[in-house]
Amino acid sequence: MVTERTVERVLRDFKKGRISTKGILRYLSNMPYKDIKFAKVDTHRHLRRGFAEVILCQNKTPAQIIRISKILIKNKQPLLLTKLSREKFNLLKKSLEQLSYNEEAKIAFFDAKGRLNRRKRGIVLIMTGGTSDIPFAEEAAVTLEVMGNPVKRLYDVGVAGIHRLFDKKKLLDEASVIIVVAGMDGALPSVVSGLTSKPVIAVPTSIGYGANFNGLSALLSMLNSCSPGIAVVNIDNGFGAGYFASLINK
Amino acid sequence: MVTERTVERVLRDFKKGRISTKGILRYLSNMPYKDIKFAKVDTHRHLRRGFAEVILCQNKTPAQIIRISKILIKNKQPLLLTKLSREKFNLLKKSLEQLSYNEEAKIAFFDAKGRLNRRKRGIVLIMTGGTSDIPFAEEAAVTLEVMGNPVKRLYDVGVAGIHRLFDKKKLLDEASVIIVVAGMDGALPSVVSGLTSKPVIAVPTSIGYGANFNGLSALLSMLNSCSPGIAVVNIDNGFGAGYFASLINK
Amino acid sequence: MVTERTVERVLRDFKKGRISTKGILRYLSNMPYKDIKFAKVDTHRHLRRGFAEVILCQNKTPAQIIRISKILIKNKQPLLLTKLSREKFNLLKKSLEQLSYNEEAKIAFFDAKGRLNRRKRGIVLIMTGGTSDIPFAEEAAVTLEVMGNPVKRLYDVGVAGIHRLFDKKKLLDEASVIIVVAGMDGALPSVVSGLTSKPVIAVPTSIGYGANFNGLSALLSMLNSCSPGIAVVNIDNGFGAGYFASLINK
Amino acid sequence: MVTERTVERVLRDFKKGRISTKGILRYLSNMPYKDIKFAKVDTHRHLRRGFAEVILCQNKTPAQIIRISKILIKNKQPLLLTKLSREKFNLLKKSLEQLSYNEEAKIAFFDAKGRLNRRKRGIVLIMTGGTSDIPFAEEAAVTLEVMGNPVKRLYDVGVAGIHRLFDKKKLLDEASVIIVVAGMDGALPSVVSGLTSKPVIAVPTSIGYGANFNGLSALLSMLNSCSPGIAVVNIDNGFGAGYFASLINK
Amino acid sequence: MVTERTVERVLRDFKKGRISTKGILRYLSNMPYKDIKFAKVDTHRHLRRGFAEVILCQNKTPAQIIRISKILIKNKQPLLLTKLSREKFNLLKKSLEQLSYNEEAKIAFFDAKGRLNRRKRGIVLIMTGGTSDIPFAEEAAVTLEVMGNPVKRLYDVGVAGIHRLFDKKKLLDEASVIIVVAGMDGALPSVVSGLTSKPVIAVPTSIGYGANFNGLSALLSMLNSCSPGIAVVNIDNGFGAGYFASLINK
Amino acid sequence: MVTERTVERVLRDFKKGRISTKGILRYLSNMPYKDIKFAKVDTHRHLRRGFAEVILCQNKTPAQIIRISKILIKNKQPLLLTKLSREKFNLLKKSLEQLSYNEEAKIAFFDAKGRLNRRKRGIVLIMTGGTSDIPFAEEAAVTLEVMGNPVKRLYDVGVAGIHRLFDKKKLLDEASVIIVVAGMDGALPSVVSGLTSKPVIAVPTSIGYGANFNGLSALLSMLNSCSPGIAVVNIDNGFGAGYFASLINK
Amino acid sequence: MVTERTVERVLRDFKKGRISTKGILRYLSNMPYKDIKFAKVDTHRHLRRGFAEVILCQNKTPAQIIRISKILIKNKQPLLLTKLSREKFNLLKKSLEQLSYNEEAKIAFFDAKGRLNRRKRGIVLIMTGGTSDIPFAEEAAVTLEVMGNPVKRLYDVGVAGIHRLFDKKKLLDEASVIIVVAGMDGALPSVVSGLTSKPVIAVPTSIGYGANFNGLSALLSMLNSCSPGIAVVNIDNGFGAGYFASLINK
Amino acid sequence: MVTERTVERVLRDFKKGRISTKGILRYLSNMPYKDIKFAKVDTHRHLRRGFAEVILCQNKTPAQIIRISKILIKNKQPLLLTKLSREKFNLLKKSLEQLSYNEEAKIAFFDAKGRLNRRKRGIVLIMTGGTSDIPFAEEAAVTLEVMGNPVKRLYDVGVAGIHRLFDKKKLLDEASVIIVVAGMDGALPSVVSGLTSKPVIAVPTSIGYGANFNGLSALLSMLNSCSPGIAVVNIDNGFGAGYFASLINK
Repeated sequence: MVTERTVERVLRDFKKGRISTKGILRYLSNMPYKDIKFAKVDTHRHLRRGFAEVILCQNKTPAQIIRISKILIKNKQPLLLTKLSREKFNLLKKSLEQLSYNEEAKIAFFDAKGRLNRRKRGIVLIMTGGTSDIPFAEEAAVTLEVMGNPVKRLYDVGVAGIHRLFDKKKLLDEASVIIVVAGMDGALPSVVSGLTSKPVIAVPTSIGYGANFNGLSALLSMLNSCSPGIAVVNIDNGFGAGYFASLINK
Repeated sequence: MVTERTVERVLRDFKKGRISTKGILRYLSNMPYKDIKFAKVDTHRHLRRGFAEVILCQNKTPAQIIRISKILIKNKQPLLLTKLSREKFNLLKKSLEQLSYNEEAKIAFFDAKGRLNRRKRGIVLIMTGGTSDIPFAEEAAVTLEVMGNPVKRLYDVGVAGIHRLFDKKKLLDEASVIIVVAGMDGALPSVVSGLTSKPVIAVPTSIGYGANFNGLSALLSMLNSCSPGIAVVNIDNGFGAGYFASLINK
Repeated sequence: MVTERTVERVLRDFKKGRISTKGILRYLSNMPYKDIKFAKVDTHRHLRRGFAEVILCQNKTPAQIIRISKILIKNKQPLLLTKLSREKFNLLKKSLEQLSYNEEAKIAFFDAKGRLNRRKRGIVLIMTGGTSDIPFAEEAAVTLEVMGNPVKRLYDVGVAGIHRLFDKKKLLDEASVIIVVAGMDGALPSVVSGLTSKPVIAVPTSIGYGANFNGLSALLSMLNSCSPGIAVVNIDNGFGAGYFASLINK
Repeated sequence: MVTERTVERVLRDFKKGRISTKGILRYLSNMPYKDIKFAKVDTHRHLRRGFAEVILCQNKTPAQIIRISKILIKNKQPLLLTKLSREKFNLLKKSLEQLSYNEEAKIAFFDAKGRLNRRKRGIVLIMTGGTSDIPFAEEAAVTLEVMGNPVKRLYDVGVAGIHRLFDKKKLLDEASVIIVVAGMDGALPSVVSGLTSKPVIAVPTSIGYGANFNGLSALLSMLNSCSPGIAVVNIDNGFGAGYFASLINK
Repeated sequence: MVTERTVERVLRDFKKGRISTKGILRYLSNMPYKDIKFAKVDTHRHLRRGFAEVILCQNKTPAQIIRISKILIKNKQPLLLTKLSREKFNLLKKSLEQLSYNEEAKIAFFDAKGRLNRRKRGIVLIMTGGTSDIPFAEEAAVTLEVMGNPVKRLYDVGVAGIHRLFDKKKLLDEASVIIVVAGMDGALPSVVSGLTSKPVIAVPTSIGYGANFNGLSALLSMLNSCSPGIAVVNIDNGFGAGYFASLINK
Repeated sequence: MVTERTVERVLRDFKKGRISTKGILRYLSNMPYKDIKFAKVDTHRHLRRGFAEVILCQNKTPAQIIRISKILIKNKQPLLLTKLSREKFNLLKKSLEQLSYNEEAKIAFFDAKGRLNRRKRGIVLIMTGGTSDIPFAEEAAVTLEVMGNPVKRLYDVGVAGIHRLFDKKKLLDEASVIIVVAGMDGALPSVVSGLTSKPVIAVPTSIGYGANFNGLSALLSMLNSCSPGIAVVNIDNGFGAGYFASLINK
Repeated sequence: MVTERTVERVLRDFKKGRISTKGILRYLSNMPYKDIKFAKVDTHRHLRRGFAEVILCQNKTPAQIIRISKILIKNKQPLLLTKLSREKFNLLKKSLEQLSYNEEAKIAFFDAKGRLNRRKRGIVLIMTGGTSDIPFAEEAAVTLEVMGNPVKRLYDVGVAGIHRLFDKKKLLDEASVIIVVAGMDGALPSVVSGLTSKPVIAVPTSIGYGANFNGLSALLSMLNSCSPGIAVVNIDNGFGAGYFASLINK
Repeated sequence: MVTERTVERVLRDFKKGRISTKGILRYLSNMPYKDIKFAKVDTHRHLRRGFAEVILCQNKTPAQIIRISKILIKNKQPLLLTKLSREKFNLLKKSLEQLSYNEEAKIAFFDAKGRLNRRKRGIVLIMTGGTSDIPFAEEAAVTLEVMGNPVKRLYDVGVAGIHRLFDKKKLLDEASVIIVVAGMDGALPSVVSGLTSKPVIAVPTSIGYGANFNGLSALLSMLNSCSPGIAVVNIDNGFGAGYFASLINK
């Protein structure tokens, strides 16, 4: 692995004349990623970003996913595969036996070092407006767990029956960060944010029909929240919410 | 005035030969409105629809408004002029002295018969999410009052501080109909509807900035409410909400 | 069931010292809903809102629907399942034998107490612009009937042949509330509203093609109606129109 | 002026050797328009298209308009200037004294040959939904009159009071072509078209507010009309409707 | 069939006392359409509108189509069924043997009286920008032919190779009306219109990909044509263009 | 001020019979906000949310702003007035002398307790893509400073000259949270996020022209970032970004 | 084949009287394309435009594609078929044995004259943001190669790991033209353009989900790039980018 | 100025021990731009990109523009200020006397080295559809001239009178690159591209009204051109088109 030390050593060698000017340039261009033509696998992302490269599987072929995964495993990186259908997983499983799959979250993962379920970090509370929003909430939850955060779930507490929410006020108080997943009117994050001093990450979902226009209604509602303390990720992007929550949950 | 009785009488005359076939056709074509070329003033709308013709002033010239108003006054109809700027009102005032003006609601009205402030109907509660939504709420309130409905106001109770709403739960229980006016995330109608069995009329407003796209965020949020019992009117259409509320408040 | 009386009794006990401060807090947190993790079934919604919780089936698994339904049945609540495909219904039928299914409305329901077909309320008239709008009209009709409202139907009377509408003027006069379901140009509610003093609930549908953009044309047309007395629900939301009509038909 | 005859003569001359090959090419490149750098004035459009070039003044400077107009006048073409503000007209008037101005239509014109008010063509009936739509209707009317068509006007007959329309059924029967100008819900063309076998040209206007999105609601409504026999022009494009109506009114 | 004469006779009878006041009202309510609950078949549309009711089959069940068709046949109306898939047609064929089907146009029709191929009317020229636009052009062509108009076709003459168009200038000159069908940039109607004094009916199609947004690019392009003399119908609405063209081709 | 202690005391009094059941209910309904009809001033928001109520001045009258401000000052709350024009500030200044104004940020504030410039928290780095984005960045900066966070600024480092960014890599490493403000292509947050393990809050701005559609281009770009670790606030919402950053910077 | 010389000869013959006036007109109308009714095959496009007609196969039937292809082959034109599915290709293969197919690019081609792999032109560098963008990049690459341009590929160098890009700076320097293919945030072209003086052709792709709205996010981002030197083609239009790159790579 | 040579020299010094490791790092961080806090002036962009930094003035204060300009002048860079109003220019003129201003193009420039009007490059032909598009065409023209390209103008040749275009075919043949500026239907680039083998850069403009939605109609039309060989820049972005044309005109 390329570390700051390696670089220092190489610089020393250059100074001592052991490496030519051309050579040092070539060395520096030898960046810490593996080039397999159709993908440039970023094997050192963990060092730079705090977590390994995550593979969005939606538009990749199984062959592509397997090849990228093997490089990451070889480099002792944890694997996190998102938006992965059951069908594709079954194909991957033959080559990547270590993988386990979470059907609801549509996520496969493998974590050799057992980074899961550490308890030193604050709790991330994940809430949904309805039952149909759960898959995206689980995508966030699994992402957070793989990244070592304890997670609590509070599902189906939409504003149509807001007493269900007040009843669980204690859960809000215990959390360090709150993720709110909601489709349709996307009103839940505004209400939750008004009740707490914790940062709220809002995930609009495409759940609904008619004038929800595939999640646009919830997205606009969340961006225009009358309550400050909310930031928003892409429609259906449970992974993004989980990843962002993990970054601020240190 | 043309009433059912007049028609019966005319029909009788036709049968008795006092009116020719041509004559009855001409009579029937003599519909109960006044044709002043640029407008067909519907002087009998009160009979047919339960309320006189309302004049949307936004794109009309003062001369047009004055002419239509005078015909309605002559026909003893109550006058209701909406979306009327202070400047235009000042011009109208010279010709239509009876008019009084509500600056906040941007409505002028004149009601010879004193239909205002009757108390036999149920209370219509008008709520706003914020202070900036008040002009549209007042447009609804004045419309309702002119149409003879008692009105209560509960302003600035947006979901960012939802305890302000719960505190006033009694007002919700006393109302027959509830109008909820909100911009930005448009989340208030969903919350209010979840707390009551009264019909909720939602008025999205253009209040906000950025991705609210002139009220689109609130409109979509309200149309996609996760709580049933809500119907929606046009953006900034306080008058429409008041009119509709009056129709169902019988 | 939690009633006001139960609360009074508990408060008395607290005063008498039979219940500790902590105890009363715990009691109050024991809110009247059943927590089954993936859903918080609102068994008392009937008391609070006037009708039981309705299950939107579109994005729920059969297992989820069955579990929520069973809790509602156990709590003697009427069942109303909307946007339910024939395939899903067949799966549900095995576990929920009492359910009957309306294919056109895509609604299943079960009402132990026979709330159906009561005649004390006013008539709700349901109209459609075309034949293809009927499924959404039936969704409204079945919802209204389950909630105890007499319903009349007037289908395929679009403005392209407006005499078909005038011919049925009497039906408009007899109704207390009118629901108008229309796709394409969404012009019918404006015309109907101009002929009556009854509140008109407009349901835009996604029926059409090209620049109707999945119902946007009808939605915008209805929101911008030149005739006051109209409120609008979401595209294809027959259920929402029926529910709202029932609220105002008391 | 270049006519077919001129071309024939030139071709003959070429054959007879009076014109060289190069010469004929140069001649042909001498197309029947006047090049004034910032504009290529199409002085022969009348021959080709049946009417002279019309100048859309909205984004042109007075100097540009004057220069183009003078060339057209010199070529004995009728002048038609659309979307022309009163301010700009006052500036033009100094250089183009012949021009007369129609304030409502925002059109200036000059027609040396008196093509106006010929009566051999069929009547074009122009209708509006409301009073605020009149300027766009007048734009169509003036265009039609300049092009030699008799015009009848039927204004403010929107669907909110549809009896105002039925009352005037005879006017529909007498017309050869009908132009319907409407904003807001844009419902009028559908209703009119359902009552007649005449072609209906629909002009959506930007009149309205909120979710009419500058005329989008009326435009989509008209494009999706449930009644066949309608074609649509651009929002606020009274001129285009008048021009098209004149083409089919032969 | 109800004709003006029948009405006159009935009115006479009323005057003579042979029919009571109630009776005449009942008679008039007996409007000239057949009510089959899910549809109000407009059997007299031909008299009123110049052509029989056309059935848009896209969202109707085969059973509904058959029932409506049989009433029209019984009333000696020509049948025109649009947007009809081959699968649905095969089902219909069993009950409606007379129907013939045009696969490309997705239209079925039956015309007992042989209104087809009359030659007294002007020629309608139908052009397409590309090969993929042909189905919508054929929809227009078949509609026109059923309505008795001679049709000429000029396909695949898009502006990318504009010489293909100039080559066929004579066809433009011979036509009375021109229909231009184009997807993608929708530029063809502007070019055609600039070359002719005939009215151009533009049909935007959904052909294309990416930022054509299902025909929006062509639709907006056509509505904003820099050349006057164009009117537009809905995206993919070949039938509407054909119907409109027939109305103006008298 | 209402604190938990006050509540405990009141509860004790109720138990001891010093307060009746009715009395305790009345007490509880006496919620910790000041009702001034047009606004419900949330004087205790600091306790509940961690910061006092912030006043969005854009659509409020000076009179409304002054009245709300005075209540907050009386309750010893810090004042933060956003989207406040210079003109409005000058009017406010007469009544609220303590206020100071930041022209670039369009924010006025007053903080009696001197919460400003505390250094115990992490640094929040605020970056902009261009010079024109600075006002929104300053809105975030002032918000953060009033809330007690040290701020560093790195302006005009857009991706068009990305070396300007790499040069300042050290600033990224020192920060706890990064706010990135950008209009036009909105590409900067993606690039910044790829270089750091710190959470990035993205603020799209309306800066640009043409197809940026008032900030839509930057908003969509940021929501769809290919780099995880980004959350987004509303267009031009510098305040929201600052507030959210302060919540996570504990 | 029609060349300038043929025309000269014909003109000479006309002058000499060997061809009549009518004859020359007929000759000129005999334009250099083959009319097969459903398509006007532009067999001389190579002369006029520098490359033969390309067939977009997406909405054409196999029979149509085969017929057009055969004419082009007969006229010794190179064949390039884009957006061609494997299924359709298999059907074509039977009639057009010469065709070879590139699965990733979804392009079939046949080039009798071996125009491929010429090296005299500059290198076109094709970059992608991610692995999923490769099919559109390959569409551009194959197009370029068929048109005789040397191509280099640099895939999966998105801004989330921008060091992968800097590492390959030399490739940018060697290229004459750069094509950048990216979905999601579409940020890559801005970054690339900022590093080079070569023209950058940006291809937005529909890769992504949620608020990318089928490529709209990348399209708007690219059109609003803060870095000059970029031009954009349609979403997913790899062919268009390749074609345009070939035109400027002379 | 920092050149490659300077870097080589510094590296040599480092090797020789004249510069410490820390020193060389500090040196490298001393990037070639001038940091003036609100802007990072990119004084070396000419070396890297082929042209100096261009200042988009639209949202910058005069003070900001002056300060950035002075640094560029000091570094002997040519100045190019775009989207600059006459009012702002008058203010700038006092401090930057060298500036000259082009009113139509809204561009100010100053070029000490006289790079203007060199003739070695190919001709760039700039065309407009209408007279109102000229300001954006001039923005492109001035940009090109400042960057040393000979420019020819061909204005007002829109497709409504396409013979005006054919007449000037020779100009197309002489050009190396063609820029086509058009609003409304945006059809001109498709037609031009079909006639030439030169690359066409399309500039959609916001000229038009109604459903052109501020240039959206022209933008979509150009992106979806049925003729390959076109690339598009932002709406009204004449500068971007000129800059891109200059890059490919080498």
